[in-house]
Amino acid sequence: MDSRNEQKRIRLTVAYDGTAYHGWQIQGNGITIESELNRALSELLKEPVKVMGASRTDAGVHALCNIAVFDTESPMPAEKISYALNQRLPEDIRIQKSEEVAPDWHPRYCASRKTYEYRIYRAEFPMPVRRLYSYFTYRPLDVERMRQAAVFLEGEHDFQSFCQSGAQVESTVRTIYSIRVEEQGAELVIRVCGNGFLYNMVRILAGTLMEVGQGKREPESMRSVLEAKNRSAAGPTAPAQGLTLVSYEFL
Amino acid sequence: MDSRNEQKRIRLTVAYDGTAYHGWQIQGNGITIESELNRALSELLKEPVKVMGASRTDAGVHALCNIAVFDTESPMPAEKISYALNQRLPEDIRIQKSEEVAPDWHPRYCASRKTYEYRIYRAEFPMPVRRLYSYFTYRPLDVERMRQAAVFLEGEHDFQSFCQSGAQVESTVRTIYSIRVEEQGAELVIRVCGNGFLYNMVRILAGTLMEVGQGKREPESMRSVLEAKNRSAAGPTAPAQGLTLVSYEFL
Repeated sequence: MDSRNEQKRIRLTVAYDGTAYHGWQIQGNGITIESELNRALSELLKEPVKVMGASRTDAGVHALCNIAVFDTESPMPAEKISYALNQRLPEDIRIQKSEEVAPDWHPRYCASRKTYEYRIYRAEFPMPVRRLYSYFTYRPLDVERMRQAAVFLEGEHDFQSFCQSGAQVESTVRTIYSIRVEEQGAELVIRVCGNGFLYNMVRILAGTLMEVGQGKREPESMRSVLEAKNRSAAGPTAPAQGLTLVSYEFL
Repeated sequence: MDSRNEQKRIRLTVAYDGTAYHGWQIQGNGITIESELNRALSELLKEPVKVMGASRTDAGVHALCNIAVFDTESPMPAEKISYALNQRLPEDIRIQKSEEVAPDWHPRYCASRKTYEYRIYRAEFPMPVRRLYSYFTYRPLDVERMRQAAVFLEGEHDFQSFCQSGAQVESTVRTIYSIRVEEQGAELVIRVCGNGFLYNMVRILAGTLMEVGQGKREPESMRSVLEAKNRSAAGPTAPAQGLTLVSYEFL
C-alpha cells in the first residue's frame, strides 16, 4: 500500500507582511497570501493543494500568526513542511509552525480567541520605518477618553454598526474579551481580543475610538452606536496598514 | 535690497527607511538619500541646493534623525521648509524638523553624541514584518556573555579593528559612551552611544558581539581584538538592515 494514500490534515501558522498583497483571499486578479500558499504547497507536495484560512485579512493588513489548514497524502512529516515551504515562499510570508491536526479540524468552526493590534503613530511628521505598520496622525488623541469608550464595547454585543455594510453573515453578535489602549512611545496600540470579528470590525472600532480621542464623540456614545445596528452610526474604517493579527488561540 | 540675498544655513533632521536607497551619499548611480534631498530642495527653493550630511549611512541602514545642512537665499521661513519639503519627498524619507543655525555650523565639525541600535530577531523562523528592520538568526545567543564583552569596548579606544579596511580617516580613535544589550521580546537590541563611528564600526561591533553570544569568542577576547588594530581580528560585518541611527545630540 502506497504511503501517499493516507490523507492527513496539516495546520500552518502563517506570518506575513501584507503590504504587497491583495489580502488573504484569492480574488479575480492580484497576488494574495492564499494564492502564494497554494502555489508553494502544490509545488512542494507535487499535488494540487488548497488551503482553508482562519482570518481573511484585507489588503495591507499584517499577521504574526494567521492559521491555514490543508489535506495532503504526502508522506512528508508535518513538522518538516514549515522548513521546506519557507524555501518556496517570498520573504514577506513565513510559516512559523506546521503540525498535524485531526482530519475534521477546521479553523473557522472551532472556538478561538483572536487578538488584533491597531497601531497609531502620533507625531508632527510621519516616521518612515513605521509607515507600513502603523497609521500616522498629527491630531492629538485623548487616550483616557479612548479607554473610557473601549469599556462600552467589551462583552457580548451585536456589532452590526461595526461591520462593513454588504458583508453577509448569519449573526453579527460577537464577544470582545478586552480592548486595551496602550502607549508605546509615539505609538498608541489598540489591542482587541475577541472570539471573532466581523468584516472590517477592528478597523471600524479603531476609527471610532480615534474620533472619541479627538473629541468628536463622547465615550458614552458607544452605547448608542451599538444600539443603532447601522454602519453609519460608527466612525470611519481606519486604514489597513495599522492592523496586525498578533495572536490566535484555539480553545 | 532683495530678501533672497541674505544667505542663511538651515539644519534638517531627516528620518528614512533605507531599504530602497543606495545609502546616504551620492554615488555614480543609484538613488540616495542625499540625491533625493538635493532634488526636492532645489525644486522647492528654485535654486541649486547641495546638502552636507552628518552620518553617511550605508545602503539598507535606517535613520530616525540623521542631520543635513544647506545654505539658501530663499526667504521661506526655516521652520516651514520641513512641511513643504515633505510634500516633494517620497514617503520613505520624512523631514522631522527644519531650523536655522549659525552660518558656520557644520554637522561633522562639532561635538556630538550619536546613538545607533542594531536589532537581532531571534526565533526558529523569520518574522516578515521585522525583516527590513532587524537581522534574523535562529542561533541561540548568550546575552550575558554579550554584555560582558560590550564592557571591554566602552571608553576611548583605537577602533581600527572595527573599521572596514580601505576607509581613509585621520584617526581611528573614538569614544563609546555606552553599549547596552537589551531584550525586547524576540528582539535583541544592541544600543551603542558614542562621539563618532568609523566606517561600518557598529555593524562590525554587532557581528563580533554575536560571535561572543554564540560562544565562538570569549568576552575577554575583546581586549586583544582592540589591541590587534586589524580588521581581521574582529568578527563579520552584520547585515545593514538591522542598523538604525536613533538619536543625534549636539553638545
